[in-house]
Amino acid sequence: MQVVLGIDIGGTTTKIGLVDKAGNILGETVTPTPANTSGISPEGFVLQLHDAIAALRSKLTEVCEVVSTGIGAPNGSYYKGTIEYAANLPWQHEVAPIAQLFEKYYPGIPVKLTNDAKAAALGEMIYGGARGMRDFIVVTLGTGFGSGIVCGGALLYGSDSFAGELGHTIINPNGRHCGCGRRGCLETYVSATGLKQTAFEVMSARYFTEPSALKRLSFLDMTAKDIADAAAQGDSMALEVFDKTAQMLALGLANAIAITGPEAIFIYGGLAKSGDLLLAPTRKYLNEAALKNFCKRDEKGNILREAKAQVLLSELNDKNGALLGAAALAWEEMEKR
Amino acid sequence: MQVVLGIDIGGTTTKIGLVDKAGNILGETVTPTPANTSGISPEGFVLQLHDAIAALRSKLTEVCEVVSTGIGAPNGSYYKGTIEYAANLPWQHEVAPIAQLFEKYYPGIPVKLTNDAKAAALGEMIYGGARGMRDFIVVTLGTGFGSGIVCGGALLYGSDSFAGELGHTIINPNGRHCGCGRRGCLETYVSATGLKQTAFEVMSARYFTEPSALKRLSFLDMTAKDIADAAAQGDSMALEVFDKTAQMLALGLANAIAITGPEAIFIYGGLAKSGDLLLAPTRKYLNEAALKNFCKRDEKGNILREAKAQVLLSELNDKNGALLGAAALAWEEMEKR
Repeated sequence: MQVVLGIDIGGTTTKIGLVDKAGNILGETVTPTPANTSGISPEGFVLQLHDAIAALRSKLTEVCEVVSTGIGAPNGSYYKGTIEYAANLPWQHEVAPIAQLFEKYYPGIPVKLTNDAKAAALGEMIYGGARGMRDFIVVTLGTGFGSGIVCGGALLYGSDSFAGELGHTIINPNGRHCGCGRRGCLETYVSATGLKQTAFEVMSARYFTEPSALKRLSFLDMTAKDIADAAAQGDSMALEVFDKTAQMLALGLANAIAITGPEAIFIYGGLAKSGDLLLAPTRKYLNEAALKNFCKRDEKGNILREAKAQVLLSELNDKNGALLGAAALAWEEMEKR
Repeated sequence: MQVVLGIDIGGTTTKIGLVDKAGNILGETVTPTPANTSGISPEGFVLQLHDAIAALRSKLTEVCEVVSTGIGAPNGSYYKGTIEYAANLPWQHEVAPIAQLFEKYYPGIPVKLTNDAKAAALGEMIYGGARGMRDFIVVTLGTGFGSGIVCGGALLYGSDSFAGELGHTIINPNGRHCGCGRRGCLETYVSATGLKQTAFEVMSARYFTEPSALKRLSFLDMTAKDIADAAAQGDSMALEVFDKTAQMLALGLANAIAITGPEAIFIYGGLAKSGDLLLAPTRKYLNEAALKNFCKRDEKGNILREAKAQVLLSELNDKNGALLGAAALAWEEMEKR
């Protein structure tokens, strides 16, 4: 049967899967992503992937023909098939021609590479909750804030393939310092790290007499999961952290909606596990923050304070969304040919 | 010869032109746009346009075959051909089926309608400085802030045709009150009205000992042109107004760049007449505000503090850009058929 290779290059591990057209993962394996201090060359990494793929294929009982390859990678350029200056990979000062190197090992098999969050958006479109939608956004919330934006049925790439960076829109010009060197990016508020910073902001500012699990944790020890667990148990301080995070997320989404007009926004990744803790207040604040053109109306044409765009959990949160996204990219490429 | 009808429905007047494929306006006329208190129905307005068009055609010496019609209108929906709840038209609580009514008068001739700023972007793409570009933004600066965003060669419409509202992205959550009911929209800082408000902010805050033409003008009397004229003569207060305006514009553009990754941003409309007074500081601040993925790099891969996206004046500022935009929409529709 025909399958594609889906490859998700993550911060510490790279996942490889053989995926059929319906999104079934027939086999998968994991290999370490080279650390930025490892000195491994792009050629060396592709060779490592090639060996892992060969080992994976040898274990399959069914005969599979690989017809296309899709790769999701940090700072991946769809146009050039390169990984460009990725901070956590050994090629931070380089443009690594990953797709081109791949083609050497698998002659005749098309290889497409894109940013990891864009791959997640394709996965949502082909295998998830965005099936049939032409305009939507996937927000991936983990350590950072990634996003993939689909407009008119196509991923938004921009002139050099790096469009769709919603996490680095500035929502507070005098706000938190961001890893990108600027201030007030959405990511500094809405991400695992941002959530923790907000917990410390709340502790620094409010007069909380109730006990809170968060008070016992140092900055180094506290995780987003600690905050989510506390909130799930009704910890008022943790609930306020989610409320503030939702307020910032809604502001960022209102801006993204004004620019790209999506039908829905899907939340994917680690923070999505907090479910309604994040989604319920985000919906509430988005109803307040959305521009009236993007709100529903009653029969008489009066504006209702309810955003048209739905905020939903990704349907791939319990599946291997990033891998399915890479596979979706590979299948999409086959359709184009 | 074959021509299209381009119609630009503005705040006070509606311009009508017969335009050939090369963008030559073979004939044009103007008719009043009905005021929101006029009580004129959509049918009545289309009849008024029909009569104006007939009069225009009767004056032409050359025989022209109208093959398509394009209309640029406030709150125009491309998908439905309607004008929806436009604040300055008599149908503020209605959805007016303008394209459909047009088709009754001109059977067999396709009619497309879109938002006025989106039409300007199409005009730039077909007749202006964006020829050959696939990703760019046109910002129309007049009383308000309009924008049309082209991604991958197509106008960005979103799920309901109202995407591309850059002027209503919030850049300062506690900022100025906006006509849309929210606070801190880009339009409240970057528009003729915003420029004036900034002049009063500067007068309220700074200790200016130098004389300034702005000090003599009341809020009702002052216009954006007064500020531009003063700045052109070196008035330090007026120059500071432009500097602050450019800073806010750059912040809004940096966000739009992060989301849509354009190759260039074109400035069109009344405020564009101030030329380098606005553009020079906007470029400077955009170089500071742009995310590093959207900055140039040197040969060694080091980031330069220079935005890749160019900030340019529209090439249609001296022409009838809005009318040419409506004509471009009509010609684009012909190409699709």
